[in-house]
Amino acid sequence: MAYQIGLVGLGVMGSSLALNIEDSGYGVAVWGRHPETIDAFLAQQPGKVFGGEADLAGFAAMLERPRRILLMIKAGEPVDQMIERLLPYLEPGDILIDGGNSWFEDTRRREAALREKGIHFVGMGVSGGEEGARRGPSLMPGGSAEAYAALGEILQAIAAKTEAGACVTHVGGDGAGHFVKMVHNGIEYADMQLLAEAYDLMKRGLGLSTDAMAEVFEQWNQGPMESFLVELTARVLRVQDEESGGPLVEQILDKAGQKGTGRWTVQAALEQGVAVPSIAAAVDARVLSAAKAQREHAAHRLQGPETSSITDREAFVADLHGAIYASRIAAYAQGLALISSASERYGWGVDLAEVARIWKGGCIIRARLLDAIRDAYSDQQPANLMLTGDLSLQLQGLQGAWRRVVGQAAGNGIPVPVLSASLGYFDSYRTARLPQNLIQAQRDAFGAHTYERIDQPERGAIHSEW
Amino acid sequence: MAYQIGLVGLGVMGSSLALNIEDSGYGVAVWGRHPETIDAFLAQQPGKVFGGEADLAGFAAMLERPRRILLMIKAGEPVDQMIERLLPYLEPGDILIDGGNSWFEDTRRREAALREKGIHFVGMGVSGGEEGARRGPSLMPGGSAEAYAALGEILQAIAAKTEAGACVTHVGGDGAGHFVKMVHNGIEYADMQLLAEAYDLMKRGLGLSTDAMAEVFEQWNQGPMESFLVELTARVLRVQDEESGGPLVEQILDKAGQKGTGRWTVQAALEQGVAVPSIAAAVDARVLSAAKAQREHAAHRLQGPETSSITDREAFVADLHGAIYASRIAAYAQGLALISSASERYGWGVDLAEVARIWKGGCIIRARLLDAIRDAYSDQQPANLMLTGDLSLQLQGLQGAWRRVVGQAAGNGIPVPVLSASLGYFDSYRTARLPQNLIQAQRDAFGAHTYERIDQPERGAIHSEW
Repeated sequence: MAYQIGLVGLGVMGSSLALNIEDSGYGVAVWGRHPETIDAFLAQQPGKVFGGEADLAGFAAMLERPRRILLMIKAGEPVDQMIERLLPYLEPGDILIDGGNSWFEDTRRREAALREKGIHFVGMGVSGGEEGARRGPSLMPGGSAEAYAALGEILQAIAAKTEAGACVTHVGGDGAGHFVKMVHNGIEYADMQLLAEAYDLMKRGLGLSTDAMAEVFEQWNQGPMESFLVELTARVLRVQDEESGGPLVEQILDKAGQKGTGRWTVQAALEQGVAVPSIAAAVDARVLSAAKAQREHAAHRLQGPETSSITDREAFVADLHGAIYASRIAAYAQGLALISSASERYGWGVDLAEVARIWKGGCIIRARLLDAIRDAYSDQQPANLMLTGDLSLQLQGLQGAWRRVVGQAAGNGIPVPVLSASLGYFDSYRTARLPQNLIQAQRDAFGAHTYERIDQPERGAIHSEW
Repeated sequence: MAYQIGLVGLGVMGSSLALNIEDSGYGVAVWGRHPETIDAFLAQQPGKVFGGEADLAGFAAMLERPRRILLMIKAGEPVDQMIERLLPYLEPGDILIDGGNSWFEDTRRREAALREKGIHFVGMGVSGGEEGARRGPSLMPGGSAEAYAALGEILQAIAAKTEAGACVTHVGGDGAGHFVKMVHNGIEYADMQLLAEAYDLMKRGLGLSTDAMAEVFEQWNQGPMESFLVELTARVLRVQDEESGGPLVEQILDKAGQKGTGRWTVQAALEQGVAVPSIAAAVDARVLSAAKAQREHAAHRLQGPETSSITDREAFVADLHGAIYASRIAAYAQGLALISSASERYGWGVDLAEVARIWKGGCIIRARLLDAIRDAYSDQQPANLMLTGDLSLQLQGLQGAWRRVVGQAAGNGIPVPVLSASLGYFDSYRTARLPQNLIQAQRDAFGAHTYERIDQPERGAIHSEW
């Protein structure tokens, strides 16, 4: 028989997707680097429509034409190697899909190279972790419309579902899917750090117990802040450690790891001249956390203020809710502005309303806020999310709380890099007259870099003797 | 006759350096892309020891052996092209110096390629603008010790002088000089933005006149904050506009330009896993300033708080001084940590005390603070500048002011991205227990990324079912 799709790479994500696809009614031929892995996988799935073949020629021969082959392997060099190995068995019209977290410029390069051979290359972001892959991920495929036409049915069948349909769409040309997935992760970094800052403020500022904090996050998850990450935060705070008898989270080393997509988001933003300060601050917060030994040493040398402990618990938690929510909006605004810039630059035609729709289910940053974001971009193209009707009103209403929390954190010596970078973004963006006129004067004075006049724009670049 | 050095590129910086070198007693042969430029330059310098030749073979023949040729041309592709053009006329032992703002990885590549041909390549940072180039710049040469031995005398003669000698040293191998110059510029971005934030807070927060602000900066320049940029800020604020009759700075468009070295600093830091949040925030502040039309539009939609105007002028200006000074220390700390990381990574052996010494004169960030920095690194290698004796005490003393200013700025809706990123850096760095344990719990819960336990480090990476 001919299988409808081939899947290369039987790690956690690959296996989970294979099972998901088969559940959805499609026969899957699998391939892995080690013949034993293939055999083991097949042996675990009796009675299901899976095939496998250790020989790549045989694997390719098992597939319906045009072939659809999904690569679920490590990003980087391995993807190029796998493409090289598969090429001899592919024919024009076949479709290769890269479901890893590839750097979008690599995807652009690969797409262009394979297009010359008549082969479609689809760089697809996959979010949702193992659970998402198995039960319904958010899928962000980029590439040609033709390739999407040949894939859409399967992808829709396996993707997460919300009231607004399956969490998949044709994101745009070549690297668009991987770019959007990268920004998704960048927003995820900012959102996770915001929740960590809220936790730190409640713990050290208010002196709340871990259970009391879990309760706060549970309450937040009933309202506009509802999201997978808030729910997850409440859940992990509730988990007890069998050994110490206390909350497990308190036994965990405070060094955050990272796998690179947050950093990539900041790099892409720098490259394109888009400001993503909340995401950049979240990446730096992880970097600083990793310097644990230095921090322990510094804690003795650099004593902070007397923690004037925040006294009105209810008022502070309410303010904190507003501050975190407003910062979340600012972080999404930055990520979407970055996608919008890249879409224009590379001619991808990304529809941000669709992006908000497919992020609503399956992925890590799924959140109620995405409904408002989808509305905001549905029949208009606002220059920035913060300008859109409802959200701009909400931000104005929340700013008092936001300002109080940032001020109290500063006063108490508790670092809130993303809360304050987000407020700085909001305040910079809504300021008609910023102080960069002084910077232009300085630059012209020491480097003859010139400046423009506000009252005589027609004069263009001017240099003065200062 | 044989000239002691050749200079390629007769733009503002090249011409100024040529004049400086000749003043110092060395004969200079010049070359420019257009023969007219060479003729014009020579015609303007009667009686001086300059030679020139439009033909590169002739130019090379005019030079003492081993040849020393300083390129003062646009960074990037033009440097590679010029090297190609010069190569046929060079011999083993000759020394090429690139005095532009080249990306340090390009310098590493060029140095390695030329080394194979027996030619020395020196990537040299040059700071100080036109004035510095003419009267005494800060010079940051990287490359082989042998090349520095053959250049040191001329470089010392033309560099700025301070009580601690000429502002030049052998920074380290291959790309070290350009790396250190790049970080110099990154710190410059942060320092300029800090001064712009101070200006904005005094203008919008206190309602001071431009002259009154100039007076504040003049006073600051008499104390520990003394620096070229503070002095320059006071000077540009005093300049009157003949057309409007008011201060010229107030007529300048508030869109800051950038030429890339600030962005490079952030990119290099991301690459190396070093946190430079103050520099990153300064780059983003320029990016946001450039979106002037969006900001003007947003100012109508996103109204800020009633400016509760800060009332106690003297107290606020004193606090502001402390906050800016502390933030400056944090920005230097980040830049030096980045240099230190790169030096280790590339085996450059950069001496940070020497870096502080050569930044003390000629360059844009020259500041009294550099004396303390030099002392801090003179006979020890602290993990971070903020930990060093005097400065750690100063930071502790200044933190109250710092916290008040960040809080008041937040409350008044005035963006202070670098002031608050710097405070966040200080507070993160001096916190033994950060909230990243929660992030590790979240990551393990949704992606099985594992965590470590503080009480059982020997167990290594652990995964739990959450």
